[in-house]
Formats: sequence, C-alpha cells, structure tokens
Amino acid sequence: MKYSFKNDYAEGAHPKILEALVQSNLTQHNGYGLDNFSLNVESIIKEKIKNQDAKVYLVSGGTQANLIVISAFLRPHESVVAAATGHIFTNESGAIEATGHKVHAVETNDGKLRPDDIQKIIDAHQNKPHQVKQKLVYISNSTEIGTIYSKKELVDLYQFCQENKLYLFVDGARLGHALTAETNDLTLEDFGKYTDAFYLGGTKNGALIGEAIVINNEILQEEFGFHLKQKGAMLAKGRLLGIQFQELLKDDLYFDLAKHANQQAMKIKETFQSIGVDFLSETFTNQIFPILRNEQIEKLSERFDFYVWKKLDQEKSAIRLITSWATSDEVVADFNNEIKNLK
Amino acid sequence: MKYSFKNDYAEGAHPKILEALVQSNLTQHNGYGLDNFSLNVESIIKEKIKNQDAKVYLVSGGTQANLIVISAFLRPHESVVAAATGHIFTNESGAIEATGHKVHAVETNDGKLRPDDIQKIIDAHQNKPHQVKQKLVYISNSTEIGTIYSKKELVDLYQFCQENKLYLFVDGARLGHALTAETNDLTLEDFGKYTDAFYLGGTKNGALIGEAIVINNEILQEEFGFHLKQKGAMLAKGRLLGIQFQELLKDDLYFDLAKHANQQAMKIKETFQSIGVDFLSETFTNQIFPILRNEQIEKLSERFDFYVWKKLDQEKSAIRLITSWATSDEVVADFNNEIKNLK
Amino acid sequence: MKYSFKNDYAEGAHPKILEALVQSNLTQHNGYGLDNFSLNVESIIKEKIKNQDAKVYLVSGGTQANLIVISAFLRPHESVVAAATGHIFTNESGAIEATGHKVHAVETNDGKLRPDDIQKIIDAHQNKPHQVKQKLVYISNSTEIGTIYSKKELVDLYQFCQENKLYLFVDGARLGHALTAETNDLTLEDFGKYTDAFYLGGTKNGALIGEAIVINNEILQEEFGFHLKQKGAMLAKGRLLGIQFQELLKDDLYFDLAKHANQQAMKIKETFQSIGVDFLSETFTNQIFPILRNEQIEKLSERFDFYVWKKLDQEKSAIRLITSWATSDEVVADFNNEIKNLK
Amino acid sequence: MKYSFKNDYAEGAHPKILEALVQSNLTQHNGYGLDNFSLNVESIIKEKIKNQDAKVYLVSGGTQANLIVISAFLRPHESVVAAATGHIFTNESGAIEATGHKVHAVETNDGKLRPDDIQKIIDAHQNKPHQVKQKLVYISNSTEIGTIYSKKELVDLYQFCQENKLYLFVDGARLGHALTAETNDLTLEDFGKYTDAFYLGGTKNGALIGEAIVINNEILQEEFGFHLKQKGAMLAKGRLLGIQFQELLKDDLYFDLAKHANQQAMKIKETFQSIGVDFLSETFTNQIFPILRNEQIEKLSERFDFYVWKKLDQEKSAIRLITSWATSDEVVADFNNEIKNLK
Repeated sequence: MKYSFKNDYAEGAHPKILEALVQSNLTQHNGYGLDNFSLNVESIIKEKIKNQDAKVYLVSGGTQANLIVISAFLRPHESVVAAATGHIFTNESGAIEATGHKVHAVETNDGKLRPDDIQKIIDAHQNKPHQVKQKLVYISNSTEIGTIYSKKELVDLYQFCQENKLYLFVDGARLGHALTAETNDLTLEDFGKYTDAFYLGGTKNGALIGEAIVINNEILQEEFGFHLKQKGAMLAKGRLLGIQFQELLKDDLYFDLAKHANQQAMKIKETFQSIGVDFLSETFTNQIFPILRNEQIEKLSERFDFYVWKKLDQEKSAIRLITSWATSDEVVADFNNEIKNLK
Repeated sequence: MKYSFKNDYAEGAHPKILEALVQSNLTQHNGYGLDNFSLNVESIIKEKIKNQDAKVYLVSGGTQANLIVISAFLRPHESVVAAATGHIFTNESGAIEATGHKVHAVETNDGKLRPDDIQKIIDAHQNKPHQVKQKLVYISNSTEIGTIYSKKELVDLYQFCQENKLYLFVDGARLGHALTAETNDLTLEDFGKYTDAFYLGGTKNGALIGEAIVINNEILQEEFGFHLKQKGAMLAKGRLLGIQFQELLKDDLYFDLAKHANQQAMKIKETFQSIGVDFLSETFTNQIFPILRNEQIEKLSERFDFYVWKKLDQEKSAIRLITSWATSDEVVADFNNEIKNLK
Repeated sequence: MKYSFKNDYAEGAHPKILEALVQSNLTQHNGYGLDNFSLNVESIIKEKIKNQDAKVYLVSGGTQANLIVISAFLRPHESVVAAATGHIFTNESGAIEATGHKVHAVETNDGKLRPDDIQKIIDAHQNKPHQVKQKLVYISNSTEIGTIYSKKELVDLYQFCQENKLYLFVDGARLGHALTAETNDLTLEDFGKYTDAFYLGGTKNGALIGEAIVINNEILQEEFGFHLKQKGAMLAKGRLLGIQFQELLKDDLYFDLAKHANQQAMKIKETFQSIGVDFLSETFTNQIFPILRNEQIEKLSERFDFYVWKKLDQEKSAIRLITSWATSDEVVADFNNEIKNLK
Repeated sequence: MKYSFKNDYAEGAHPKILEALVQSNLTQHNGYGLDNFSLNVESIIKEKIKNQDAKVYLVSGGTQANLIVISAFLRPHESVVAAATGHIFTNESGAIEATGHKVHAVETNDGKLRPDDIQKIIDAHQNKPHQVKQKLVYISNSTEIGTIYSKKELVDLYQFCQENKLYLFVDGARLGHALTAETNDLTLEDFGKYTDAFYLGGTKNGALIGEAIVINNEILQEEFGFHLKQKGAMLAKGRLLGIQFQELLKDDLYFDLAKHANQQAMKIKETFQSIGVDFLSETFTNQIFPILRNEQIEKLSERFDFYVWKKLDQEKSAIRLITSWATSDEVVADFNNEIKNLK
C-alpha cells in the first residue's frame, strides 16, 4: 500500500493518549464534560494562555467547533468575514449558512485576512438594514494553505476588530503547527489576549478526535453549554476529550508533535529546493505545495499518495503534501530519495 | 468515592475496543468514514438486519444522530410526533426545533407511542396549510423510562406509518438493552424491515462514542453524507467509530454487554421485590425505578449515587438506577446487601 | 350567498382608509417604512401609550409579526411559553420552530396564561443545558377563544416575567376588541408599561393589512429593522401600512370599530341567552361560542356561514361566530330573528 | 420638494387598482388566497403563459418571494448560484442564508448569468459531501442593473439547468420592464416554458404590493402553501393581492405601465446622449446609469433626487435614474431641460 501524504489524520492517536485511555478506563467519571480530565484541561489551558477568565469547551471536530461558535456568537442578521480559502467558506458543506449566517469571502494571495480586506466588505454593506451586518472575523492559523500569521498581523486584526465592534475568531485546527513553525513569533498567550475566541486542534495533531474551544470574551461565554448540547456536540463520555487533551498538554507533547510534523515537511521542502523545484506558496508548517511537471507527479505517485492541488498549465501542477506527528524519519528519507531521482 | 448508578456511560469502553484501537493505531486509513473498518461495519449490519439495500452511517452521539436524521428527512413544513418522554422532546435542548421542525408530544403511561396517539395529533392538524404537516414518527426502544416495544407494537406502528405516509424512526441509544430483555420478542432483523431508519447505540453499551444510523428507506439515503458533514458529524478519523462497532458486532459482544447490564438490573430489582418495594413502571432492561421512602433513599445514598426521579408524596419518591456493561457482580452484591438492610 | 360569521377579515377596509389611500396616491414618499405616514404613526402610538422610548414597526400580518419578534428577541437556545390555544402553537404552520425555537404549550381553561403555568414549565426544565431555556412568554389579548386579560392579570404576569428574566410579548391581533370589551379594565397605556413588546392588530379591525409592532424594551429594539428585512416584511411601499394606521388612530376610529364588532357579538349573545343557549366560554369580545343542537346548527347554516368549533357529544356542538367592524345592524337583526325561531 | 428618480415605488398604485379596491370593498370573500380574485388571477396567468399545469401564488414583496421559493425548493445541503449583483446576494440582508442556504456569487459585467459561470461554480465544488451541492440558479430579468436576457440566453440557461438537474428561478420584480424593452425578444409564454418558477412583479409596476409567483415545475408545487403560511406571507385578506393583479392583467395594463416607464427612461437617455454623456451599461428598461461630472451631478440634484451609483474617479460618477408607471411627461420634459443646460 502507498504511503499517504494526503492529510494529517490518517493514523490513530499518539501512543501516550491510548495509554491514558487504557489506564483510566474503568474508573467512573461524570458525563457531559464535567469529568475531572476536562475540568483539568480547562485549568491547564487558562494557565498556558495566562487568562484566568477564559472558558474552555472540548468538542469532537473542526466543523463542529466552527458552526457552534459562530451560531452561538451571532444574532440572526449578523455575518462572517473570511478568506475565500477559509475552511468554513469552501469545505464545510454550507455548515455556517445552515445555521442562518452569511459568510463573505475575500480573495487573498496567501490565505490571510488583513484589516483592509475586511474594511472593503464593510464599505460595500452600508445600505442598512437592506444588507447584512458584519460581526465576526474568521481566520485560520495556520491557514488552509499552510501560511501563518505574524504577531503584528494578529494584533492589527484584533485592534481593527475592537474598533469596529467585530469578534475575532481563530480556527486553530493546526494551531500547533503554526506556533512551532520556524518563522513564527506568536505564543499561545497571544491567543488568550488578541482574540475573542480560538481553538486548539487535536484531531490533526495526534488526538483521535478533539478541538479545545477557548472563549476569552466573557460576554460570549454566556450559556455556551446550551449550544454544544443543541448542536449534538456534548459527548456523554466527555472524558474521551478530556483525557486526550490532558495528555497532549502534558510536557508540551502538543507542541512537540506539531514541531515534528513541521520538521518532516521542511526536510521534504529542502529536498525539492535542492533539485530546483518551486512552490505555490512559501510555507513553514506541515503543508507544502511543490510545483512539478506531470511526469514527476506520476513518478512520485507510484509509491506515495497525495493530492494534485492546482493545475497550473498543460505541463505543470502544484501538489499538496501534508506531514504529521506520525510521519517517520524512514518515510521522509524514502520519499526524499524518490525526489532526488526525479528529473 | 460512591459507586454511581446514575447512567450507563460513567466508565470508558469495553477493553476489547481499546485493544482494537491500540492494535490498528499506526496504520494509515482513509478519513471521513471511508476507512475499511467503517465500510466493514456497514456490511456486517446489512447482513445482520438482512437488508442489503440499507445504508449505515456512524456518528458520535444520540442527539447528533436524532437531529441529522430528522432534519435530513423532512421538508421545512413537516413535523415530528413523539412521546412526551421522548429524548428529542425534553432532553436535547431544542435540537430538533433548532433545525426548524416542530415536535408534537403525546402524553403516555409507559413511554411508548401507539397508532391512536399519532392519529389524534393528525386529527388535530387538519386545517392545512395553517397547521404543520406530520411526517415522521420518533420512538425510542428501549424507551427513556426503560420499557420496550413488542413485535406486534412495532409492526402496527410501521403499518400505520406506511398507510399515513409517515416515516418511522427509532432512537436505539439503548437498542441492545431492548433486544436482550427477557420479555423481548423483536430481532435486529425486524428493525431492518419495520422502520425507515433506526440506530444502534454504542455510547451506552460499551463504546467510547458512537451510534450506527441505519437507513432502510432508499429515498431517504439520498445524499445523506452532506447532512453529516454540514452538521459537524463527519469525523476526520472515522476509524474511531468503525473500529469500535467492528468490535461490538464481533461474536455478538454488543448483545452480551447489553444482556449483562439487564441482568444486573434484574438482580437488583428482585432484591427490591423481596423486601416488598414497588416500582414506578415495570421494566426488564437496564433501568429500574423503585419507589422508596425518604429515609431509605437517604440510607442508600450513603455509598451509592443515583437520581431521585420523581417525588410521589411527602414520604416517598421513585429513584432511577441504571446498570451497564461495566456493572460488576461485586457491586451488585454489595448494593443488594444494602437493600436487604433497609427497613 | 350566505352571510359569513367565519372571521373578521371577510370584507376589505374601512372606507376612510380607502379614501386616505386615494388622496395620497400620487404623492412621492420614501420607501421601506421611512415615509411620513409611518413615522407619524410611530409618534401617535408613543403618545397614546405614554412611552416616548418605544419604537414602532409596521408589518403586514400577525404570523409575520410573531415570527419576526420572537426570532429577533431570542438566542438559539431560548424558548417560548404559550397557551396551547396560542396562535403560534397551533395555527402558524410551525413558523416559530422554523426560526429555530421551541414553543412550550400549556393547557388552560380560558386561553390565558398565568404565572403558575409558566413556573411549571420552568420547573420541568432545570436540567441545564440539556433542556432549553425559557425566555419569552407569549400571550394573546383578546385570546384565540375570545377571552381577555384583566389589569391585575397582566401586571402579575409582567412582574413574574421581570423576576424571572423573561420577556413578555402580547399578540394583539384583536387588541382593539379586548380593550373595548365591557369587562375590560386595561388601557393601551398599560401595554406600553407592562410588556416588553406587543402589537396593535389592523387586519382584523378594519385595515387591508397591517399590524403595528411596539417594542418597549430598549435592548430589544436594537437593529430590529434588519430582522424585518431579512424575513421579507419590509414593504417597499411602507406608506400602505402608514396611511392605514394613521387613519385608524385618528379620532379613535380603531377603538370605535372594535367596539362596534363587540356590540354586534353581544347582541347575538343576548339573543342566544334569551332562548336558553349556553356557551363554551364566557366572552365579551367579537367571538362567541354558543352550544347548539345539531338541528339548530343545520337550521342556522341555511343562510349563514360559520365554523363548528367543537363537537361536545352526539347531539351538540359549540359553533364559533365572529363579528367585525363591518357587521351591520341589519345582518345582526336578521340573524337574531333566525335564532329566535330555533327550537 | 424634489422629484425623485430614486426608485419605482415612490407613488401609490395605478388609479384603476384603487378603484377596484373601492368597488369590491364591502363584499365578503374567503381569506388566505382563496378569494375569487386570486383564483381568477391564477387562471389568467396560466392562460397568458400557456401552461395550464402551472400554479400561481400571490405574495406581498420580492424578498418574501425569493426566500419562500428558494427555501421551499431546496433540501438543507443545496445551494443557489446567482450573479454578484443579484438582489438575493447583496440586498436582502441575508434572507436566503437565514433559511439555511448558501448563495454562490459570480462576478459579471452585465448582471447576467451564463452557463459557463455556473459551470465554474460546479467545478469548484466537486469534493462531495464536503462542499455544498448547487441546485438552483437565480437570475433577475430585468437585472438589478437594468439589462435584459435574450430568448437565446434564457433557453440556453434552461437547457443547461435541465442537463445539470438544476432549477431555474427568475426574479421578475421588473419582468414587465424587461418584456417591454425595445430590444426584448422574450414573451411571458417563454417564462411558462423555460423556467421552473418565476414571478411577475407588481410592487415596482403600479401595485401597492404584490408579486405573482408562478411555479411551472409540478414537483415544486407540492404543498407550497405551507411555506407561504410558515414564512408569514399568507395574507388574511388575500383579496388585496388578487384584486390588484386582476386589474394589472386586464387589457394588458401591466405591460402598458412598464412600457411607459421604459419610454420615459429612454427619453432621458436620449437627452443625455444628445449632449455626449456615456453610460455605465447599455440599458433599454426603466433604469439608466449616465456617467456625469461632479458639478453636473450637483446641478441636477438641485431639483431632482437620485442615487449616485458608482464613483469612477475623482471627477466622475455614474448616477442611477429610475422611472416608473407614474413618471409624467411633464417631469421628463422638465428634467430633460435641466440636462440640456448642463455643461
């Protein structure tokens, strides 16, 4: 069977997580997120982000996190601004609209939103109340195309949002990868300070399932549990989420796993660079988009699996390669050898 | 710490499930329900219910299963008929209404719906189009108060639904317990034949999470996957659901676990009967509702945890005791001793 | 053709309304509720209810008013408490649920909600967040079965709502009829004081279309216009609504029309009483529910149209008769003669 | 007061409509669209479009028509394709999204959608079920910027929709103006043949309120009345809509009024052309977009009111002028004189 670089959720969980599940298995715990593990995770995260007023809610996946946060935060006439590459705009089967809210999409070069982008959307919607009211800004870090926000970019966005009474919400399905990228200058603490809400993704970073939603804005915390329940996200055995995040947050396993994924991607990136391959965008996280000739793609496909991301012309396409916490040195070495053999 | 009889999801998973997770952990599999385990589970269930035209979809919990099935099946003006004790009516924080549909509740003595109950709702809504149109009948087996449907009752309901162009949907969060009750005369096969859709609950019967939705009605299968995705129910690592159900369905583990839970409840029931205690309703599944005097409740509460279900008068209340696949013989013996010491 | 007592919207508009439409017809006015008539109506109503902080919004019908008010006021997890006879519960084709909110229905004898009724619903929903949160109380005055609230009843309800952080919203489709009933002790001013929002119905009291929503609670006024637009209620020619209410509120035409309707009903009621007929409920507004024998119903049906409201036994049913601003003395005299001839 | 060219709904109704309202006023009629006038309108329209299988539903406005049609036709995971200038995308405060459906917007030069535009959206959404499914194509004729579809364009679109299992729905808020434009080659009959549904706008063509929705596709007619009621669109006095459309459709008044509006716009257009003014787009309906210098705009604004539509550079902007059935020859002559005096 081919080795797959298609995504970062092809394997199960980091072994320490399974161990913790086994060890705690027969102990009784409260249901619905009131287990000791989940409560403990809240304490740990509040400590890590240096925001004792934050609240933490564990859910099973990213689409679920996005739709619950957004529908809980907005009134019916309020809308979301996102990059056109944003997961909520293109890859969640209309989940946000299904809760009644419009998503405005902005075309970007690098998957990142900037104050100007948002201002243009606001300017184009001044005919109130005939046009929806923008209220929430959705960004992803790392973005869907592997890029990351700098501290200045995040702070600027947050200030813009504050001035314009907009909420800033960060999809952190790959937040670990963003924060451990070599070019990163943001910390987890910054997310406790410069966002209204964000989440720490577990699914793509070593958990079986799980995203930890953190709500900093106290007004938005109000009665949030009802929304989890109403949307079917409150697991009876919430311990499953609590135990996993407890393990991930112990001794910074979460960041070690993400850093490993990034490093494996960087090794592959360097190998491509060494043979003169260009990239669709410059990334330092676990997603890379090398531009290859058709026959090169065909050759690599013989023993490895990945998505052809974008056809550039009749002869060349960008492919997408994703590494994970589980991508071994052997696999990377093997793949790099294949790359070096490309002509 | 007190031993809890509050619910059947206080422990983790059956050890065989954890073992299977560990064994398969580092193998790569497709995401989003296209892994081999999930596909295999579909085959097994189709075989077990003797309906090769059914489709199976694995989701994480009961509220999620209910809201996705109901919102996918109905047009905006169509409504649901349920017992007033139905989980969707009282315990899901308005999840069904949040998808736009009214739930009509019928008061019942035993938590079970009968054709007459539904006919009354239909008769009271003949002023069309000023009143909603009933289209789906929701029942639970076992019910939220532990009772079960007989084969005749299910067949009668299904025929009534067929004649009235209604869908019959069965919430099977505790279907295992229903089918292994000593008074049961239904088989899994009957659910493949006499319902439009139903689900096999895993969460309350030994899984970490997971309910297996089975759609028999081919028209209702159409494009169901979109609804899973849109409501945030499509797990990236769908293998987590597939592996669990594969284990549960192997060698009938699913039914063995449920039968064990029922038997432990019956042992406790008999002990209560031996000291002359009455019950709120007669049940043969893993939920029992003994009626106790206040001081008896207080005494039992010293070392055991459970819900006081219904206050009957100043001196007596019914309590709810739930056993599970994990309730040990030792715990039952210990609790039965306490009962015998009650005065 | 038979004369119809089926409803109070069988004729067009009061002639003064049509005159006003004709006179203003060719003048240009702003669209979408910003015309002078609509603005003037707001001033008049604020004056009449002695609440200068109120806001007034004109919409075309009652179902529209109900669904917009309720969906604008509530967050997704909040629900409505209503009488089981409430228009939103039984006669609006699931309009409220279609906006995502559950309606709890309380059985009542007289169509009126009391604090105790609401308290019982609240008490039955203490398992938060697994059960929805009650947030809005919906009452109708006059009710759907013709009864009215006393001042004490309204004040008690409002105080209860204030204490329990509930909004009180009054469906006033027939508010004119309530306020001009001989047993009434409420004033329009009371509705500016003891409700969060209410509406003055025009459609059933002499307008072609139109209900005037009044929001007293300033927090609930915020950005209400967006909801009108989003739900398709903002008429391009809002003048149609403004002109009509301007006429209705001039020289108390609104109350004169309602009083006329009530009086015609009372004349018929007295005639029934004179021949010993009983009523399903005691009403003093424009709806009466005499209990007649089958052959009496048949006889009256020969030249008059009305609904058979409720079958009481094999021989008797209650019928519903509704009078309106347009019910003439001649018609009443004619009908009363028919009654006197009944045996 | 300035004369306004801001829209085509600044005046009341055509006098014949008011006359008809007055004449029928005191006759009793059935409520909720079952009056003789509304039934008659259905017959007339079916005759005019030569489609006896069509169904006709009268509602009060365009946003209401759009949101009801679209939400009634689609399942939860289905989306709409529209031009970026489409009324539903930019000017209805998120009304479509509020019913749960995504609207894909396509940038166009002339406000018109073509098969290629739709194909591109479909191509970009092949990752099913992670991306929504396109199911309905929404176009406006005349468009929001005054352009019209040719017969070939409509037929091509319809064929494309048929081949791709898409519904074609036409917003006809200004259908009269489109069909009476000098460059038009479409007939009302074509709309009975080459669309799944469309509506004939009354509000912008001489009615007080009213749009006549015509559903050609028999499957989509099913139980449509429920949706009207549920969304608050079913007027108790449906006669108000029926009478108006009966008048508009008598002796082709509807088309005479639209033609008049177009002719007045064309007279103004010619005058602008005579002084060398260019236009943002070439239109033959009742909307024109002359490009003027700032001082020209200022001069015209002294006695006339209109929107500045688009700023082109520091010195020039396009303005929007809309004429209507009520725009008199005197006003046009007066305005044309102003134009001629511009430098």
